[in-house]
Amino acid sequence: MTSRASNPVGIFDSGIGGLTVAHEIKRQLPGEQIIYFGDTAHLPYGDKSAAAVQAYSIKIADLLLQRGCKVIVIACNTASAVSTELLKEYVASRARVINVIDPMVEKVSQNTKDGRIGVIGTKGTILSSVYRLKLKNKDSLLHVRELATPLLVPMIEEGFIHNRISGEIIETYLSNPVLKNISDLILGCTHYPLIKKDIENYYKGAVVVHDSSVETARYLAAYLNENNLCNSNPERPDDHFYVSDYTDDFERSANHFFGERVILEEYKLWE
Amino acid sequence: MTSRASNPVGIFDSGIGGLTVAHEIKRQLPGEQIIYFGDTAHLPYGDKSAAAVQAYSIKIADLLLQRGCKVIVIACNTASAVSTELLKEYVASRARVINVIDPMVEKVSQNTKDGRIGVIGTKGTILSSVYRLKLKNKDSLLHVRELATPLLVPMIEEGFIHNRISGEIIETYLSNPVLKNISDLILGCTHYPLIKKDIENYYKGAVVVHDSSVETARYLAAYLNENNLCNSNPERPDDHFYVSDYTDDFERSANHFFGERVILEEYKLWE
Repeated sequence: MTSRASNPVGIFDSGIGGLTVAHEIKRQLPGEQIIYFGDTAHLPYGDKSAAAVQAYSIKIADLLLQRGCKVIVIACNTASAVSTELLKEYVASRARVINVIDPMVEKVSQNTKDGRIGVIGTKGTILSSVYRLKLKNKDSLLHVRELATPLLVPMIEEGFIHNRISGEIIETYLSNPVLKNISDLILGCTHYPLIKKDIENYYKGAVVVHDSSVETARYLAAYLNENNLCNSNPERPDDHFYVSDYTDDFERSANHFFGERVILEEYKLWE
Repeated sequence: MTSRASNPVGIFDSGIGGLTVAHEIKRQLPGEQIIYFGDTAHLPYGDKSAAAVQAYSIKIADLLLQRGCKVIVIACNTASAVSTELLKEYVASRARVINVIDPMVEKVSQNTKDGRIGVIGTKGTILSSVYRLKLKNKDSLLHVRELATPLLVPMIEEGFIHNRISGEIIETYLSNPVLKNISDLILGCTHYPLIKKDIENYYKGAVVVHDSSVETARYLAAYLNENNLCNSNPERPDDHFYVSDYTDDFERSANHFFGERVILEEYKLWE
């Protein structure tokens, strides 16, 4: 396995939200080469059927495997919810599959403030009940309440952030009785780190807000370390950021989500 | 041509918003059989590249032609903006191509209240400047101001309608200086008829709000009449509503946009 340490880390998402995860991976593991694929032709995954998201995930995994990726990070909660087991079977020993849900479940089940855990995400993620099932499996005494908050992704993507409207939309969702009296809130969507501060402000410290990009990068770093797969190449890695449909708007948003300049390359996976 | 009067009318959209147009066509032309295709696998078209939307439009047109459609109605402003000329060339004499933009341009250029026309729509529609170019082509003295209002589609789809948040989002967009002092507003997206009343309330009668479903159905009726293509079959037509990706949520929304019960059938055009 050590011979593959110099191979890239593959990361994919329905679009550019997964760049919050990619950026945290680069921060924690600056020596790793990243191959990112954003399926902007099918964005958003949150309201697609499970079968559609599974089919897209397989085709993207094929591309990442062709590029020799040693790990495939599913940087999308919807795809993590419906495609993880399928991808593990499909990829088998060719690469390790890591998603954004399991690292979070592991952390929150061990470090919950008071065992009353709220989860917000897209319809796809919430309908799958994946967080509730996995958390209860770790500790059956945990109370888990889930709420779909589908307007948050377009709200963030259209730049309605840190203003009165975003404040009211966030308040409308978080004041839902389903989330009453929670002690922890899981941000179950890779877009949500961009409004983490607004959500923390809403709760005024009463609720611990958990963001999956940090946990996922930590989980990946531990896996690479334990398996001697860390890239110690001192050269600057040649990262690639592919999208299945390119627009200037996606590039502008990409810089926003990644937190620094990103050059998107169009890769017509579906033609 | 008269032999084809009993053939169906094909209608397509990126998703279910085009059902506002389909419903108005059924209202004005109850004898016509409808074949509707909603490309929910690629929804929304508004932020896709022109090339991607053109490729989708061609493949959908092929399906509608296979079903013998005498007319193809592009019930989506983004696709109307970027695919109309291509589809006319591609379809040629096999069917008539009608979009949602030309009927509106014809009506508004002849019936504007005072020649200062605002247009709102998705990024794709507005970036194409299609309304401005076509209106100015009809009458170079018209003043046309365009504004992309991308959060309105997800807002409507997520049921944020007729409440404080939808009111504030609508106000934020319509108070943009770009739209100052307009006399007419074109709703350049087939989702927007669902918030037409809210928009009219915002303007308190000072601006005439134009909705394309009514104009498109009128234009279609005139074309069918003039060419003896009206379906006078007294039987109840066997309509079909296909989507490229099916979820229960799409079906619920479909009933909302169509204004009555619709049964969606999944048609895997992309597999």
